[in-house]
Amino acid sequence: MKIDWQRGAMKFRGFAILLLISALALCSTVNADEGMWLLNAPPRAALKDKYGFDVTDAWLQHVQKASVRFNEGGSGSFVSPDGLIITNHHVGADALQKLSDETHNYLRDGFYAKTGADEKKCVDMELNVLMSIEDVTARVNAAIPATATTEEAFAARRKITAEIENESREKTGFRSNVITLYQGAQYHLYRFKRYTDVRLVFAPEQQAAFYGGDPDNFEYPRYDLDICIFRAYENGKLAHPEQYLAWSANGSKDGDLIFVTGHPGRTERLLTIAELEDNRDRRVPKSLQFLKTFEVLLQSYSQRSLENGRRARDDLFGFQNSRKAYDGMLGGLLDPELMGKKRLQEAQLKGYAATHPEYVDTLKAWDDIAAAQKVIAANAMRATLLENYNMRSTLFHIARTLYRQSTEMAKPNGERLPEFRDSSKETLELELFSEEPIYDDYEQLKLTGFLNYIVQELGFNDPVVRTILAGKSPSARAAELVAGTKVKDIAYRKKLSAANAVALETESDPIIAVARSIDKEARAARKLQEEQTEIKEQAQAKIAKVRYALLGASIYPDATFTLRLSYGQIKGYEENGKQVPAFTNMAGLYERSAAQQNHPPFDLPPRWIERKAKLNLSTPFNFVSTADIIGGNSGSPTVNRAGEFVGIIFDENIQSLVLDYAYSDVQARALSVDSRAIIEALRKVYDAKALADELLGAKK
Amino acid sequence: MKIDWQRGAMKFRGFAILLLISALALCSTVNADEGMWLLNAPPRAALKDKYGFDVTDAWLQHVQKASVRFNEGGSGSFVSPDGLIITNHHVGADALQKLSDETHNYLRDGFYAKTGADEKKCVDMELNVLMSIEDVTARVNAAIPATATTEEAFAARRKITAEIENESREKTGFRSNVITLYQGAQYHLYRFKRYTDVRLVFAPEQQAAFYGGDPDNFEYPRYDLDICIFRAYENGKLAHPEQYLAWSANGSKDGDLIFVTGHPGRTERLLTIAELEDNRDRRVPKSLQFLKTFEVLLQSYSQRSLENGRRARDDLFGFQNSRKAYDGMLGGLLDPELMGKKRLQEAQLKGYAATHPEYVDTLKAWDDIAAAQKVIAANAMRATLLENYNMRSTLFHIARTLYRQSTEMAKPNGERLPEFRDSSKETLELELFSEEPIYDDYEQLKLTGFLNYIVQELGFNDPVVRTILAGKSPSARAAELVAGTKVKDIAYRKKLSAANAVALETESDPIIAVARSIDKEARAARKLQEEQTEIKEQAQAKIAKVRYALLGASIYPDATFTLRLSYGQIKGYEENGKQVPAFTNMAGLYERSAAQQNHPPFDLPPRWIERKAKLNLSTPFNFVSTADIIGGNSGSPTVNRAGEFVGIIFDENIQSLVLDYAYSDVQARALSVDSRAIIEALRKVYDAKALADELLGAKK
Repeated sequence: MKIDWQRGAMKFRGFAILLLISALALCSTVNADEGMWLLNAPPRAALKDKYGFDVTDAWLQHVQKASVRFNEGGSGSFVSPDGLIITNHHVGADALQKLSDETHNYLRDGFYAKTGADEKKCVDMELNVLMSIEDVTARVNAAIPATATTEEAFAARRKITAEIENESREKTGFRSNVITLYQGAQYHLYRFKRYTDVRLVFAPEQQAAFYGGDPDNFEYPRYDLDICIFRAYENGKLAHPEQYLAWSANGSKDGDLIFVTGHPGRTERLLTIAELEDNRDRRVPKSLQFLKTFEVLLQSYSQRSLENGRRARDDLFGFQNSRKAYDGMLGGLLDPELMGKKRLQEAQLKGYAATHPEYVDTLKAWDDIAAAQKVIAANAMRATLLENYNMRSTLFHIARTLYRQSTEMAKPNGERLPEFRDSSKETLELELFSEEPIYDDYEQLKLTGFLNYIVQELGFNDPVVRTILAGKSPSARAAELVAGTKVKDIAYRKKLSAANAVALETESDPIIAVARSIDKEARAARKLQEEQTEIKEQAQAKIAKVRYALLGASIYPDATFTLRLSYGQIKGYEENGKQVPAFTNMAGLYERSAAQQNHPPFDLPPRWIERKAKLNLSTPFNFVSTADIIGGNSGSPTVNRAGEFVGIIFDENIQSLVLDYAYSDVQARALSVDSRAIIEALRKVYDAKALADELLGAKK
Repeated sequence: MKIDWQRGAMKFRGFAILLLISALALCSTVNADEGMWLLNAPPRAALKDKYGFDVTDAWLQHVQKASVRFNEGGSGSFVSPDGLIITNHHVGADALQKLSDETHNYLRDGFYAKTGADEKKCVDMELNVLMSIEDVTARVNAAIPATATTEEAFAARRKITAEIENESREKTGFRSNVITLYQGAQYHLYRFKRYTDVRLVFAPEQQAAFYGGDPDNFEYPRYDLDICIFRAYENGKLAHPEQYLAWSANGSKDGDLIFVTGHPGRTERLLTIAELEDNRDRRVPKSLQFLKTFEVLLQSYSQRSLENGRRARDDLFGFQNSRKAYDGMLGGLLDPELMGKKRLQEAQLKGYAATHPEYVDTLKAWDDIAAAQKVIAANAMRATLLENYNMRSTLFHIARTLYRQSTEMAKPNGERLPEFRDSSKETLELELFSEEPIYDDYEQLKLTGFLNYIVQELGFNDPVVRTILAGKSPSARAAELVAGTKVKDIAYRKKLSAANAVALETESDPIIAVARSIDKEARAARKLQEEQTEIKEQAQAKIAKVRYALLGASIYPDATFTLRLSYGQIKGYEENGKQVPAFTNMAGLYERSAAQQNHPPFDLPPRWIERKAKLNLSTPFNFVSTADIIGGNSGSPTVNRAGEFVGIIFDENIQSLVLDYAYSDVQARALSVDSRAIIEALRKVYDAKALADELLGAKK
């Protein structure tokens, strides 16, 4: 349940257009453990009332600065004074994939660095640690003239945001991003410490990390050692983070209060009915259609040889993972009960507005959103295909970035596309000059798949499709582009990155030429979506006031891939009339394998067969809690009242997939790997005693 | 490359709406081995000219009556005087699947009956042998009044067809079907001997039959023992067919002339450009979308347990096989060269018509087809989902058949839907009262998948969708229907089958109720497609005359899943600059496995590892020829000049997938299993000496 994107922040922006103000669901009870809370607005009262827990500022600072964001789409935490960072195997997979080649398959086979010298520096990895939050709402809003048109407001907001970020970056040296919260009701400046010298310390074999494979993904009970351990360095030396989580000596037990700090990517809990219907009728089914098309394409390629399988492994997991998540979301949208509740909630809000003169004008906000959503829906396929997907090709993505960079860098900082702002420079270059291996056959496969898809969706006779294909069939065109481009060469990228716009306008590289030839249309499609989103944000800000007046409850914003605090209880649940206990143990792994005749993907890794007798089979393996999480929370630490590490989030159960739209604690559960299983496995399966000792507090 | 359908003849009719007159492609050379020839109109001159081969009537009768049609979608042949029939493993898979249960997995593990008593009677299997052909064109056309409207012409044609079939069946006792050839230019009455007591004799393990799995499907070189052997019985005794193919003593060699007799399902070689564009823009992409959706659904279900995998195995193969075929077809349609040729051919025909006064009127025919195709396209999704797919549920298919039977049987024979005609009675009942195992969880999976799909395609608020869902979510509705229906019970089916229309109108069974509630709409959608097809047929009959006048060449009709004769040479081809030899041998199997580190799907079956030393590794395994084949030809015998069995068609290479639209002999090749590999494997791998002896001519 890694966050649903393939291309880091750039892709996320594409998907983020529907994020809207979120708040406590109207029908939820006071006692439910709902919420993905801002670290500067934690649910103090709820925690005090239900659990007798006092949230102190020191406790908050501790968990905040021990938490780590993986920019490729996940979470993690510092777990030693010497910079050890733990995350999920499936979050580390991107790094494992990029470190592997034809002869070393670290993603499949695992890795352990016995000494510091053995640790492997990751390719293009960036980690962020949130250092401070500042509310800049007033300054942002003051920069928007009251009489501004939508287009002017959008431009003004972009300009002031760039200005604030740049100022902060120059002053503090931190990566600085203005985050839109409550869909435009608040703007907070987040400052992050960046780590880019990150080295691989330990990964189990994928079959232990992802035991049960796609069939068991989003299921429970589970037996997964879904971990990957890195170490941060600064200036070539061990990093010593300001905060780290001590490893709990005793672990956790049924009923315990636990906390989760991490980076949920996207929720859509307070979409209007018009938006939800568009999700149901278009966005989710269309996303599923694309996901399934690419899943079949990559699955089929992967099976042709072991090396193909290795090349596509991480991408294929991503498609399968998203497909399962979207299937679950669609299930929720087609469930009359969920939609019925949503309709009731909207009717309550509208009813309140209609009967309170000061809010009567707000009724128009729902109509404005519905109208904007219609425009977004009509333009969505074009925007997605021409802009967000980057042709599903690494080469095209690089080519487009190079081409646009020349134009964008010539503009004032405040007028650029956000990914080209000065505040994003380091992150952009890390990706642009990445030494990530690129395989011609695999690029060709994905590009052919994309070209077939765009023909199907926009039509063979669409002018932009004709421009891209240039009179060739999709497969012939993809072959020609991949064979002909020079952007595989990093020196060439650096040369073009330093060149000016005139040079790029005449550059003959075939993929640069494609990026250039569709740029106007792609930018137009993106702009249309962004301006309609601006309209929706203004409307949502009005609705938020009605909601606050009606409910008066404290409110958390929808997820934005920024740090949030969730909490809940370790607690089993009932399914088909049977009680599912909160914990599994190591014995269960062997039982599940036996029940499935050790058939893939339920086969035991050889090392786990050999070491079975050594293991304490009663060691807790995975557990579930009611914490409110979503994709992006993968790798989040599960911590106890004392702020100690007791586990690591790695998945949610199938009943949680509707959490995108509404929280529930009846059956929905967050899944963690137990801290005790990690130590037991490191010691007895992986002979990683030194690492286990360091996690338990021995000094490096 | 089994024919693309899942539900036998009923499904095929759904897909058959686009079948059109076929003829020699205009740009083909005289020497190409093109054509799927009628047995009563063989290419005598071409065979004489190119190969010096005289087609005698005795030779034709011999291969015709030795050929067998598998009604589930494949071909086969008699290969012994005592009723042995050989086909492909993937054609026999349907029978193997239905004979298997939780404890016996014959599809995966294979089967061998050492004695007649061990042979297993297949569930609901029907084989057909073509006994005679009679041209009834004049009688059919005489029954259509010159002044008839489209609707009247369609009804009159249906009536006379039923009359001819019934008359023939009563007179001869044979299954009798009027086949529309040349898209309405000719009607031939085909009489088939039916075999329904068919017993399983031998099948290898699927891993030997389908070595290389989905990745190697439609590829070459190959090493597949894709065979399955049955025996026909009549009145409880061995059947002694009028003709059977003797097993060649020496096999074949590079350059040999070979023949293929089998049942190609569907080609579309002379579609008009308007129809081809509709294929490119709608039919093929939409089919692919559905195929991929169900492939992912079944793959995901299959992986959850071995038993799930067993239940879905044959269906999953079908979806993957069709997906690969359609991907190849789409590749052809998006290839400017292929479409350019097609445009040129149409321009030549139109040019000829325009310059010859007697054909000037024919120019309108292309417009009529384009207009009809537009109507068909607009209605296609509705017709496919409401009528052809039968909700992808065995239970629904049974329920619909029961419901419609009561209404249809009350009508005169000539006015019924064709599947309810007296001439189809035995076939219908074989399927309706089949003891095929039905699994609730699997039915629920497929029905949920279908309901999700229909919501996506027709829209959540479509009245017919609302009727089907009855206020539930797709998964809840599917669960309720599967749990609540009684049609699983064969006694209940027999009771309803004997009941009258009034009883069916009030029957409360929930799936019967669904069939009833959408029947009017489903029939209307079907009728619309059929009437538009009538318009196209009349137009195609006119175009056929122009084509004949221009080309004067002998003509073969597009494939119709009836017996055809193809021919060609055993011949390798060039690919990526390298020569691919015509033959592989058994040593190649072991080399391929080693190169793939014996990783699935390239792992050797244990028996083949054990027996390696015994085998003559130079035994020819598979070979390729230029014979013109397509899906449905699976299991066709490959015979030599003497009419002897030298191999069995089991696949075509990836370059053949465009053969749906145009023949080529540059790279496109038909794949056969060599007769010598079959004997070598039976003797040395499967210890089936008695069977090998019988095939080689020993008397039973």
